[in-house]
Amino acid sequence: MARTVPPARYRAGRHFLQIPGPTNVPERVLRAMARPTIDHRGPEFGPMVLRILARLKQVCRTSNPVLFFPSSGTGAWEAALVNTLARGDRVLAVETGYFATLWRNVARKLGFDVHWIESDWRHAADPTAIQAALEADTAHAIKAVLVVHNETSTGITSRIDLVRDAMNAAGHPALLMVDTVSSLGSVPYEHDAWCVDVMVSGSQKGLMLPPGIGINAVSERALAASKTSTFRKAYWDWAPMLVSNETGYTPYTPPTNLLFGLDESLDMLLAEGLHAVFERHRRFGEATRRAVSAWGLELCPRDSGASSNTLTAVWLPDGHDADALRTVILDRFDMSLGAGLGRVKRRVVRIGHLGDLNDLTLVGAIAGFEMGLGLAGVPHTTGGVAAAMDWLAAR
Amino acid sequence: MARTVPPARYRAGRHFLQIPGPTNVPERVLRAMARPTIDHRGPEFGPMVLRILARLKQVCRTSNPVLFFPSSGTGAWEAALVNTLARGDRVLAVETGYFATLWRNVARKLGFDVHWIESDWRHAADPTAIQAALEADTAHAIKAVLVVHNETSTGITSRIDLVRDAMNAAGHPALLMVDTVSSLGSVPYEHDAWCVDVMVSGSQKGLMLPPGIGINAVSERALAASKTSTFRKAYWDWAPMLVSNETGYTPYTPPTNLLFGLDESLDMLLAEGLHAVFERHRRFGEATRRAVSAWGLELCPRDSGASSNTLTAVWLPDGHDADALRTVILDRFDMSLGAGLGRVKRRVVRIGHLGDLNDLTLVGAIAGFEMGLGLAGVPHTTGGVAAAMDWLAAR
Amino acid sequence: MARTVPPARYRAGRHFLQIPGPTNVPERVLRAMARPTIDHRGPEFGPMVLRILARLKQVCRTSNPVLFFPSSGTGAWEAALVNTLARGDRVLAVETGYFATLWRNVARKLGFDVHWIESDWRHAADPTAIQAALEADTAHAIKAVLVVHNETSTGITSRIDLVRDAMNAAGHPALLMVDTVSSLGSVPYEHDAWCVDVMVSGSQKGLMLPPGIGINAVSERALAASKTSTFRKAYWDWAPMLVSNETGYTPYTPPTNLLFGLDESLDMLLAEGLHAVFERHRRFGEATRRAVSAWGLELCPRDSGASSNTLTAVWLPDGHDADALRTVILDRFDMSLGAGLGRVKRRVVRIGHLGDLNDLTLVGAIAGFEMGLGLAGVPHTTGGVAAAMDWLAAR
Amino acid sequence: MARTVPPARYRAGRHFLQIPGPTNVPERVLRAMARPTIDHRGPEFGPMVLRILARLKQVCRTSNPVLFFPSSGTGAWEAALVNTLARGDRVLAVETGYFATLWRNVARKLGFDVHWIESDWRHAADPTAIQAALEADTAHAIKAVLVVHNETSTGITSRIDLVRDAMNAAGHPALLMVDTVSSLGSVPYEHDAWCVDVMVSGSQKGLMLPPGIGINAVSERALAASKTSTFRKAYWDWAPMLVSNETGYTPYTPPTNLLFGLDESLDMLLAEGLHAVFERHRRFGEATRRAVSAWGLELCPRDSGASSNTLTAVWLPDGHDADALRTVILDRFDMSLGAGLGRVKRRVVRIGHLGDLNDLTLVGAIAGFEMGLGLAGVPHTTGGVAAAMDWLAAR
Repeated sequence: MARTVPPARYRAGRHFLQIPGPTNVPERVLRAMARPTIDHRGPEFGPMVLRILARLKQVCRTSNPVLFFPSSGTGAWEAALVNTLARGDRVLAVETGYFATLWRNVARKLGFDVHWIESDWRHAADPTAIQAALEADTAHAIKAVLVVHNETSTGITSRIDLVRDAMNAAGHPALLMVDTVSSLGSVPYEHDAWCVDVMVSGSQKGLMLPPGIGINAVSERALAASKTSTFRKAYWDWAPMLVSNETGYTPYTPPTNLLFGLDESLDMLLAEGLHAVFERHRRFGEATRRAVSAWGLELCPRDSGASSNTLTAVWLPDGHDADALRTVILDRFDMSLGAGLGRVKRRVVRIGHLGDLNDLTLVGAIAGFEMGLGLAGVPHTTGGVAAAMDWLAAR
Repeated sequence: MARTVPPARYRAGRHFLQIPGPTNVPERVLRAMARPTIDHRGPEFGPMVLRILARLKQVCRTSNPVLFFPSSGTGAWEAALVNTLARGDRVLAVETGYFATLWRNVARKLGFDVHWIESDWRHAADPTAIQAALEADTAHAIKAVLVVHNETSTGITSRIDLVRDAMNAAGHPALLMVDTVSSLGSVPYEHDAWCVDVMVSGSQKGLMLPPGIGINAVSERALAASKTSTFRKAYWDWAPMLVSNETGYTPYTPPTNLLFGLDESLDMLLAEGLHAVFERHRRFGEATRRAVSAWGLELCPRDSGASSNTLTAVWLPDGHDADALRTVILDRFDMSLGAGLGRVKRRVVRIGHLGDLNDLTLVGAIAGFEMGLGLAGVPHTTGGVAAAMDWLAAR
Repeated sequence: MARTVPPARYRAGRHFLQIPGPTNVPERVLRAMARPTIDHRGPEFGPMVLRILARLKQVCRTSNPVLFFPSSGTGAWEAALVNTLARGDRVLAVETGYFATLWRNVARKLGFDVHWIESDWRHAADPTAIQAALEADTAHAIKAVLVVHNETSTGITSRIDLVRDAMNAAGHPALLMVDTVSSLGSVPYEHDAWCVDVMVSGSQKGLMLPPGIGINAVSERALAASKTSTFRKAYWDWAPMLVSNETGYTPYTPPTNLLFGLDESLDMLLAEGLHAVFERHRRFGEATRRAVSAWGLELCPRDSGASSNTLTAVWLPDGHDADALRTVILDRFDMSLGAGLGRVKRRVVRIGHLGDLNDLTLVGAIAGFEMGLGLAGVPHTTGGVAAAMDWLAAR
Repeated sequence: MARTVPPARYRAGRHFLQIPGPTNVPERVLRAMARPTIDHRGPEFGPMVLRILARLKQVCRTSNPVLFFPSSGTGAWEAALVNTLARGDRVLAVETGYFATLWRNVARKLGFDVHWIESDWRHAADPTAIQAALEADTAHAIKAVLVVHNETSTGITSRIDLVRDAMNAAGHPALLMVDTVSSLGSVPYEHDAWCVDVMVSGSQKGLMLPPGIGINAVSERALAASKTSTFRKAYWDWAPMLVSNETGYTPYTPPTNLLFGLDESLDMLLAEGLHAVFERHRRFGEATRRAVSAWGLELCPRDSGASSNTLTAVWLPDGHDADALRTVILDRFDMSLGAGLGRVKRRVVRIGHLGDLNDLTLVGAIAGFEMGLGLAGVPHTTGGVAAAMDWLAAR
């Protein structure tokens, strides 16, 4: 998995962490996390948690409960399932890429009966296929539909609103569960308006924190389901957390210093303004895609409308190893890019452009990619950086 | 749960965080955690994890695998159970206090059949009772024995070596699972020598980190059990982690910045030397108990030999509210102490004296307690501080 | 100068920095200083400096200009002299201890003609002697009177108001220059009300910063004098700084990160409230003196009313080496105390109790001293800690 | 001086601080400076200072003493003069730009008789003119020659070796004083080999620290001169510092936390290797100049061989306001550039490319400049970024 042995000598300047998460943690957040740990049962703690929860709801665009776990985002996948379903329940999971597959695997490992809508990892979730599968399920055996909003392995954003429409059109009562790990706080997500039942997210992408916090947002229907859920669970159980969310004093020992960071990063997101944040990412996505297009390279998504604004997966020409390219770029330009995962291993390189990022860092990253293409011998036309700059300057 | 509203004005000086965890995070660790997040699949990450695992084994005194989760210690309880047992298995759990009870509750919630050895929360785990229960289980239905090494709610340390002896004497094949959340890295714990099968721990006490990392150490028998375990699990599954521990690249997104901190705190523990660390805590425990004795107050543990060296639970006289005392101390002296939990709520106050602590801070803490006793009107004899100083100076 | 070789092993816990400055820098200030350096000519910088200057004036209790230099406090001594005087001018300097002597030496090195009022380092500046010296100077050859407000080497606070009265009584027009390095922001100082002409201070004591900023506050008379001063100067010249203080853009490259810290520490001082800060120090001073008295030891100041509330200089019995005591305390309890300087070298030990400090840290410090007395074999009565606690608890 | 009012909203991403100093402080250095302040007379302090001095000598390429002051670089100018000269001495100062002029002003303010070799701010110091001036001074009235190695206002590096040759050719005994504020640790400087007598530098450029430390390196001749110097001085006096440099315990309160940073940054410079550091800056200088050339813009230096490798001053076409360009770039791209100073105010924009910097950050900076040119309506040809990338990729 390690790409290369780092040179022993010190590397000057700031590492370019352009993987699609964990993202660059703003130094304000790093400093906030360096505060001495406080008593999680003391008078300062509860109000901080309540303040965090209130703003997390704003970011999720929900007036329903939001819960967080000391866990990676993976844990929040599991929490979504075990709180609302019964052992062995059938779920419909939609293949969009590596992370959708991992979520499916979690569901299978936990014993759920997964109906898997296959895909080629180069298209968004297909509402038509979902509708068809649900309509075929006349007995309503399917209890939940699992979709990844922004597939981090392929750079494809699926239309959750259309998925919801499809479910409605099918008249199917399954719960809608959506992974927003790499979209929340970076591209528009409407928990209530889209009638999502359980959202699954994490701290380390648009929320600009290190990994370590898993998040669920739930709907009233999901809450109701959780009250009758018979699945055995302890750590992931929403029930005690919903009680403790009233006071801000958690049923488990909370990840205090990460919460200091979240308190700060939520301030930053809301000070910039969610709309401005989304618009910034839209600009970055378009700039990056224009660069790829100028290089004459292909995107992983075949449908340009489905391209993600938080990362861009570049599909390398046949015979060129994406990992060799990444190694050259890391060695020469001290930039980390995302590897191709699973089925697209060594075929794609992923450029993360989400989180705490501005125009000039993005241009630097695109420049590193362009220079790397040359050094690695990947056929391309130069001019990607220029195309990105044209777009960014014109805004 | 909140004890008091903090005064609006700024409080000068350093807060005394004398709860029995999370402990004072050393500023070196805080600064280490403030380092920019790095690529968890990059060349620097794997070696760091391997370095951490190797030293965690030293701290656990084991040559067998150690695993860590992005989770609280609570999660590591769950991981211990679900990796080694089968659904509905019988386990023997030993009541020692609040956290033993919580662990039991986790086991029950997950559907295990818990045989519960009751206690009054004022004694260590009783090897004789354990042996008797195991001998009565001639069918060997009991698959695991769950014991808390250092019960954080009562300040009592149980003799795990004697528990192991009891199991051996009973000739019973159950796995021995031990919670070391508030003992690991502070008081002697011998994973291999005591033939513990699964150790459960966390980052926020003797390891001197904020909360957010759960830890398991396992024996060969536990590993073998995990290979045939039929319990459904995903997040807590050891199998993929054991593979990834070979390279240091985790199957989940790891809590990078907490790992930066752990890398640093392990350096500190081993630089001080485990023996010196234990000896330091022994001095602190004795100093604190001498103070309590000088005050004429009672300890929670009725058996002085069972007193913990990482925290001291003081039993207040009838008619005196432990939480009122804590409130006075917090308001007047800016010191956080641990509340009584569960059955001993409002009866005990817990003084944490573990982690990154030295003599003068301990004396300050004891002084805050003694002055608080006076202000709260708790009958006592002064001289606790003097007794502690006599002990510390004589060493 | 080095007292001892530190043990190679890591020392757990927080070092007790109880020297009379540099003081403990609050972690909030340390984190503020860890912010990335910004453009000192950019739009954010000027407003920050203006904000700092406005609040520094509040702390100095003046409506006249305050100026700061990238320098130690020593530099601000020099600035006071060279901006207001002419080459070879006569000044009256009052011996109070080591730092008064150093200031005198600076004046001499710069070629001023120093009239030196001697003292035994155990008394405050004597207004009567000052008045007599000024009255004798019928020709008004003396251009300035130099007094240290709080003599850091002896723990003696002089009455600047009485010095001003004496000057007025003598009808002498000399400028009054006052060193407040170890008093500003800790004990009351009234720049305007006491008609001080030039105040000299630094960042590393009551302002709770690391060393690196020298400060002058000036009166209208001092300003007028500076306009006609013929002394050759460049770095210390107030003229360009007075201009730049209008905008906040300095004539030299400013110490940006220390200013980040000052911005924060001024917030903290004013949030606590100057009156509360002074009252806190008064409590600490009294508590420490009660401890010394209980030990049966002597204070350096012979006049108890002159004892400083920011540090306490303890006079050791004949035949006992103060530095040996400090060494024992540093080695055994990881506490730094102030050495005796100059004439009182090895005779006094100084306990700093100023800056970011609270009751329990002070008790810890006093306890370290008391235990150290025993270990070093200095004859004393125990009970100093108890006396301090009695005072602090009774408040 | 303030260019613009910053937008109230939060700006995402990392500010590009591309002024020619203070430079980007590496986060490792920032974290080192966030360490709690220690006793400057304690056992840890002296060895740290000795370690710093030893490595500073390596960076200055000298085996003679190096001294540091709590001051800006400006202070080190003054120190150079007042330690080696007598009141009213004649010095030869060479105009190269704004900072050479400021140093001349310092000399004049201190009463020295400055012989000023004028220049147009677009050429390096002229060895021929220096030689002529010295040859004309048959009485050897000139006691020192003052040259700026790297003129930060114009981006011109002067050949100190040739200046030394000129002095030797003239057979003139004047001391050679060189300002290396913006060259030390970034471009080659040979204190001993070039027989420089006093070097003047600061912490905030190639040493990668915030401002606050002034530095002198001295030769044996300068030391000898200092011993007989009659100039009145106190703060800047080398004599006590030379004594204290033997032990590392300073005669003034040292800027402890900046020294923590210097201790770290020297580690980084020497780990990268001075040669590698110089080579990196050479690449950056060339890349930037190629960009300027591609834009069809003029450099401030008329002699391309004199271009500095630490900053590039771009000369804007007539009728275009450099400050308007900087404002656009700051507002749109969050990048700070250096303003034109003094005679070239509003004519030049300065791009800093020194200190903790890598290729991609440099490309980002150049891209911001190129986009800014378009937005500000400055006539230019695009392709500067491409030219820089070509150079950087080819290395």
